[in-house]
Amino acid sequence: MEILKGAEVSARMKEQVLDAMKQYEGDPPMLAIVRVGEKPDDLSYERGAMKKMESFGFRARSYAFPEGIPDAEFRNAFQAINADPGVAGILVLLPLPKQIDSSAVAAMIDPKKDLDGISPVNMAKVFAGDASGYAPCTAEAVVEVLKAYEIPISGRRAVIVGRSLVVGKPLSMLLLKENATVTVCHTRTVDLPAVCRQAEILVAAAGKARLLDGSYVGDGAVVIDVGIHVDADGKLCGDVDFESVRERASMATPVPGGVGTVTTAVLAKHLARAAGVLTE
Amino acid sequence: MEILKGAEVSARMKEQVLDAMKQYEGDPPMLAIVRVGEKPDDLSYERGAMKKMESFGFRARSYAFPEGIPDAEFRNAFQAINADPGVAGILVLLPLPKQIDSSAVAAMIDPKKDLDGISPVNMAKVFAGDASGYAPCTAEAVVEVLKAYEIPISGRRAVIVGRSLVVGKPLSMLLLKENATVTVCHTRTVDLPAVCRQAEILVAAAGKARLLDGSYVGDGAVVIDVGIHVDADGKLCGDVDFESVRERASMATPVPGGVGTVTTAVLAKHLARAAGVLTE
Repeated sequence: MEILKGAEVSARMKEQVLDAMKQYEGDPPMLAIVRVGEKPDDLSYERGAMKKMESFGFRARSYAFPEGIPDAEFRNAFQAINADPGVAGILVLLPLPKQIDSSAVAAMIDPKKDLDGISPVNMAKVFAGDASGYAPCTAEAVVEVLKAYEIPISGRRAVIVGRSLVVGKPLSMLLLKENATVTVCHTRTVDLPAVCRQAEILVAAAGKARLLDGSYVGDGAVVIDVGIHVDADGKLCGDVDFESVRERASMATPVPGGVGTVTTAVLAKHLARAAGVLTE
Repeated sequence: MEILKGAEVSARMKEQVLDAMKQYEGDPPMLAIVRVGEKPDDLSYERGAMKKMESFGFRARSYAFPEGIPDAEFRNAFQAINADPGVAGILVLLPLPKQIDSSAVAAMIDPKKDLDGISPVNMAKVFAGDASGYAPCTAEAVVEVLKAYEIPISGRRAVIVGRSLVVGKPLSMLLLKENATVTVCHTRTVDLPAVCRQAEILVAAAGKARLLDGSYVGDGAVVIDVGIHVDADGKLCGDVDFESVRERASMATPVPGGVGTVTTAVLAKHLARAAGVLTE
């Protein structure tokens, strides 16, 4: 089984962006990371994203707000970031605390700065197959991995486990656009292993540690693992039981070192597009 | 094989709306049908829709424009209809002629009056599984047929042939919301008959006359035909070769007399919601 390394995919994307930056005049594009509270997951994602932006030659700034900030106060501050011409792109770390009206924030965000595709405008574009918008970075990262490793998608049977608005659903639209025959599974799917075994491309985005073992994998399938969890021993793992799928899969992404690395590279690529460094 | 009759589904929906109308005070809600040109298909759909609105106790008015109307002129006229408080809902007959910027019209239409779900706001809601928006009427009609005949959807394998923005894609989201395991097929699907045979609920929305014959149907499957075509003999037919699936399917919708009838009933139900006659 070949291991699909996120770092290699990310490195290629970086090359492409650095190349384009040579033609670009003006200050490096700035990413605003909007965070409410101090959740360890958010802090760790923020650190990773900031590092990645720097490595792509971009700037990033964290806009952190206290966990208990009132809705109106947050929205005022957010509107200022949103309107700031010095900010080329925005990443809002989700979920926001309950007192904040997340759907109002999603409706407010300038679709042209909405790098993680939370605005209804970008959602509708992803749904319509219109590439001028921004898809959620994680969903797009899956496609980037497949393309970087030149794995054919057109005409292939893709099965996605998970129907979230950040991965499963947008990914189903992105893979349809690439002409895959796409099946979306979820907690109510009957005989999930049998459905998964029909996949030539199997994407695990269920949010459940090591849910998919070898019995879910058809002979020679490509397995992409979107999950990230800390197991009982404090070890990072994905939605896929990696060791168990080795015998069946032809290729698989590891966790860590797989899709996660590519997600922040997609964020950087979106920032490059938002700033006009890249045109597609 | 049981025949799933659109008229019965539509009659039930009408009862529900007439019931709600008893509590409703004020003028009957008004539907504006916006048509550019005189295409026979548009004229026939318009006649059917107007009749249906009347039978539901509603009003409908046709706003017809010449085929060659300039974009700016059309958009001005459209904005007036859009802003008219006497118009509760709008149906734009698509496609519009090429000189008119359809996506600008879709972005302009008041999402609360957009009964056929062409606005990005409604698309994003369908995508997100938010029932407060309007799904395209034909996609929703498929779900209405299944529900009226008490066909279980949750946990069932649904296969949709066709990935259009008016049927295939939104229907995939509606069926996911009902907890089906959903597969979307299209022209690039390899071995389409084999994929279709896995369906417990098979929806033909391919736009190709009699594409699906008995070899596409698994034993006992429910077949829903969204297509409508005039064949070489001048006879109406669907995407399904109806006679050929009789032996395999447990239930199927005919053409005519199936989904089409329900589509205008969904339009009426949406008008009832837009006017506040129905709350869900």
